[in-house]
Amino acid sequence: MELGLIGLGKMGGNMRERIRRAGHTVIGYDRNPDLADVASVPELVNKLQAPRVVWVMVPAGEPTQQTIEELAEQLLPGDIVVDGGNSRWTDDEKHAELLAAKGIGFVDCGVSGGVWGLQNGYALMYGGEDEHIARVQPIFDALKPEGEFGAVHAGKAGAGHFAKMVHNGIEYAMMQAYAEGWELLEAVDSVTDVREIFRSWKEGTVIRSWLLDLAVDALDKDEHLAKLKGFAADSGEGRWTVEAAIDHAVPLPAITASLFARFASRQDDSPQMKMIAALRNEFGGHAVESK
Amino acid sequence: MELGLIGLGKMGGNMRERIRRAGHTVIGYDRNPDLADVASVPELVNKLQAPRVVWVMVPAGEPTQQTIEELAEQLLPGDIVVDGGNSRWTDDEKHAELLAAKGIGFVDCGVSGGVWGLQNGYALMYGGEDEHIARVQPIFDALKPEGEFGAVHAGKAGAGHFAKMVHNGIEYAMMQAYAEGWELLEAVDSVTDVREIFRSWKEGTVIRSWLLDLAVDALDKDEHLAKLKGFAADSGEGRWTVEAAIDHAVPLPAITASLFARFASRQDDSPQMKMIAALRNEFGGHAVESK
Amino acid sequence: MELGLIGLGKMGGNMRERIRRAGHTVIGYDRNPDLADVASVPELVNKLQAPRVVWVMVPAGEPTQQTIEELAEQLLPGDIVVDGGNSRWTDDEKHAELLAAKGIGFVDCGVSGGVWGLQNGYALMYGGEDEHIARVQPIFDALKPEGEFGAVHAGKAGAGHFAKMVHNGIEYAMMQAYAEGWELLEAVDSVTDVREIFRSWKEGTVIRSWLLDLAVDALDKDEHLAKLKGFAADSGEGRWTVEAAIDHAVPLPAITASLFARFASRQDDSPQMKMIAALRNEFGGHAVESK
Amino acid sequence: MELGLIGLGKMGGNMRERIRRAGHTVIGYDRNPDLADVASVPELVNKLQAPRVVWVMVPAGEPTQQTIEELAEQLLPGDIVVDGGNSRWTDDEKHAELLAAKGIGFVDCGVSGGVWGLQNGYALMYGGEDEHIARVQPIFDALKPEGEFGAVHAGKAGAGHFAKMVHNGIEYAMMQAYAEGWELLEAVDSVTDVREIFRSWKEGTVIRSWLLDLAVDALDKDEHLAKLKGFAADSGEGRWTVEAAIDHAVPLPAITASLFARFASRQDDSPQMKMIAALRNEFGGHAVESK
Repeated sequence: MELGLIGLGKMGGNMRERIRRAGHTVIGYDRNPDLADVASVPELVNKLQAPRVVWVMVPAGEPTQQTIEELAEQLLPGDIVVDGGNSRWTDDEKHAELLAAKGIGFVDCGVSGGVWGLQNGYALMYGGEDEHIARVQPIFDALKPEGEFGAVHAGKAGAGHFAKMVHNGIEYAMMQAYAEGWELLEAVDSVTDVREIFRSWKEGTVIRSWLLDLAVDALDKDEHLAKLKGFAADSGEGRWTVEAAIDHAVPLPAITASLFARFASRQDDSPQMKMIAALRNEFGGHAVESK
Repeated sequence: MELGLIGLGKMGGNMRERIRRAGHTVIGYDRNPDLADVASVPELVNKLQAPRVVWVMVPAGEPTQQTIEELAEQLLPGDIVVDGGNSRWTDDEKHAELLAAKGIGFVDCGVSGGVWGLQNGYALMYGGEDEHIARVQPIFDALKPEGEFGAVHAGKAGAGHFAKMVHNGIEYAMMQAYAEGWELLEAVDSVTDVREIFRSWKEGTVIRSWLLDLAVDALDKDEHLAKLKGFAADSGEGRWTVEAAIDHAVPLPAITASLFARFASRQDDSPQMKMIAALRNEFGGHAVESK
Repeated sequence: MELGLIGLGKMGGNMRERIRRAGHTVIGYDRNPDLADVASVPELVNKLQAPRVVWVMVPAGEPTQQTIEELAEQLLPGDIVVDGGNSRWTDDEKHAELLAAKGIGFVDCGVSGGVWGLQNGYALMYGGEDEHIARVQPIFDALKPEGEFGAVHAGKAGAGHFAKMVHNGIEYAMMQAYAEGWELLEAVDSVTDVREIFRSWKEGTVIRSWLLDLAVDALDKDEHLAKLKGFAADSGEGRWTVEAAIDHAVPLPAITASLFARFASRQDDSPQMKMIAALRNEFGGHAVESK
Repeated sequence: MELGLIGLGKMGGNMRERIRRAGHTVIGYDRNPDLADVASVPELVNKLQAPRVVWVMVPAGEPTQQTIEELAEQLLPGDIVVDGGNSRWTDDEKHAELLAAKGIGFVDCGVSGGVWGLQNGYALMYGGEDEHIARVQPIFDALKPEGEFGAVHAGKAGAGHFAKMVHNGIEYAMMQAYAEGWELLEAVDSVTDVREIFRSWKEGTVIRSWLLDLAVDALDKDEHLAKLKGFAADSGEGRWTVEAAIDHAVPLPAITASLFARFASRQDDSPQMKMIAALRNEFGGHAVESK
């Protein structure tokens, strides 16, 4: 089938390649003309035969918002927009309504796979109405990993991004689990080979996983991670997971602890621990470290 | 080679079987005569040719303590004791000293695998001196999974149990990660098929793992886990992990949160939340629920 | 001075009384005619001499929104609206803009004091422009506790509610601190009189506080809180505190743990712990409790 | 009455002074002869009339252990030893047995008050048998704050130190509560005067406390705590609180979070966050910060 694809960055570019390898036609647009097949969104729309499917793969927030508004102007009833970016699920319902008012369908799709997706396929979680999903299905089939897993119709509009967001929340806590265990093993003198312990866990253990395999890969490059700083960004989806949990009164202690550990990792000095130091000094005359 | 094996319960019995399948001779003793090959520890010792290797596979704490003390009496210099139970690593050093005073070697071995071990092999983490490990190596090779992973010499005496303990701590937080994500997905109306989302994650995602596979198996038996109570025991190793972290001033927020969630799951009513309710009532006249 | 007061419930009614005792004139409106001095908001506006100050003391969210919109229609340039309810600070900026467009001033005021406020005074945290604050100052002076503390101009519009929200977040964690300590003391056999321990802490300790006094009051009524259920509501401000922290990448581990403990207290059974139980059963054959 | 006091450091020296002011006779020994009234423990024992009361006020662990062993040799049946140091409650039972075997009584006493104790009195939590407590009571009365609070017979031997330990655990979480709130207020632009917000909370709020007063004192010396490093030691009692909770399966999420925040504050770089950074790089090609 024919697909319009807006956004040809690290993710979008590889996805175009994987869809083409599956025999589909992709017309891609990007603000960077070196990456694009067409010069503008209107040209992209013109080149596609109706009814069209246009996949939006641009940064979440303002860029996605503007692109969907532009498509709402350019597309025709019967066309479908897929938001494959990292949008917050609360935006999806608004976008679905905006487009539905013009007779245009909407599907949201959370995409996992990162730099490994081109080769291994992308895990896909999508939300929307059955008839819209069915129209995009050949593209989902091209992007997903081989085998029976890796793609799911998660529910209504927004459910795809919601599922992907929760996936990332789980990911935060799993990474934190391995990281805590690794730090503890490294802290103990009688344990002499932490890297080989991690490697041994790749088979026969309860905690074997792809993330564990990656941890071993990282330790093979730098056994004690001595070249790295203990600094971790967060991409927004961990924050949204905690906010969604708060909205639904669901306790998420491990995922939230993982998010807060990242926040703390980015502080040069901790304001709250200054207050702790100040209080200890006030009531106990405890020594404080001054700058 | 020839191995004495004390403790033929769920774990020990299957391990005897797997070692025998690998062509070794196992003489097993258990307090339950229906399971045992010999009638007593002295008989077991007599039947083994010196220098002997005796593997202890009995519950941690008092039973292991008594068995090792008995072996310290019965064995001879040059023999080796392996503690394959779930002993606390702090006990291993004492046991190593006790036995070394008699010229008997000591190896501690954390064993993972549960009900799957007979078929897939047991992950092994062992600690002790090189020469002692080398003597037990054929048994380790028989027990471990096929392939290049699943067994590691983790360090000095105690390091094997320490590594296994950390493995279990990581396991707690990974399970908690999936559990939190599952609860959040189940809480949201627009998400219509949580089980299929979990199934889809088996390929192409960052969070694919053996535990995820097990979660899908569980959901296939009982889609919303409606037949279960939200009640989780803990086996001791999660507690020890947190205590070890405290000893070494290592923060373990996600693992500890997972342990505390289990504690709370076993309380019919939460004393601390009674105090919260009482305080809210005192300062705000907030309604409380009375029994 | 003269004040219009909209909302005469548990809080508003007592505040009217305290302001009147200070010699000011209060014209109150409430949807419940039994409580009201006037029959409608327009009548309230008519009875006040310009330039007016109208204090809104209705539930946060929709009721406050509607009241402020109605006042924006009814009031005149030079009048001032005070929002003394529990509004989210993010609403204040919108309200300030809405009113400023009509030349009406806006002050937001977080009010603490609960059922004790009439007698002891209310702690006040207010935000807005200096000139607007100055106009309301006599009312603030009437409401605040005697002495030099208890009232603060916290910053721009929204800062009052923000400060009050953080106050409540701190309150959550302080209550949780006492509650955790109480549960631990109650759990230990050698400690024979937990209530008297709490009482003794009222003087000479680092942890003496008004909340501690209230805890002793509660224990005097019911020594082991046996009549209460471990069930705690949350009022929104704890949630907002965590959300604000996430927005600013500030780690709040203790406050968030306190919020999550309340969420968990309201669950009959914990979905996430069902998943933990299910996983333990899958990999270890561990017994589960079924319903 | 007459008291022997061993240990005349910062705490012991002030306590001697407060006891003397109450009209009692104190014979003090310290390894530092400049502080001591007698030259040795045997001399101290000789100078006291039987039946004696000797208060031990030396560092917990080895120093306390040695002192109690020495007193077990030197004292006579009918004498009483009070351990007023920061001993772990698990040590008290052993010490009580050791001394009881010689007919010597034992009382453990947790002491709070720090640098403020000489002036305001010390909060005391003591454990032991009624008859032993009664013998020490005049000293307790001299040390405690004026008024009806500040001293409690908490239970059997060990209960005094246990209660003091829990006091400190609560203290950790209360300090963390204020510290988290302070950091969040400082992070927000519209809030212009965080110090004055804290000051205003001293009256009329739910969170007023002595610790809050100290926080204001600290902010008055250094409004943004700019001269301090965010570095906090921990004295052992926070750790023991968490360990006691684990022993009794009591969840302590807020207190434990506070302990872990201190651990993290003392790390120059976080090993666990290096692992998080490494994993993010492996699966996502995310940029890492290298040293």
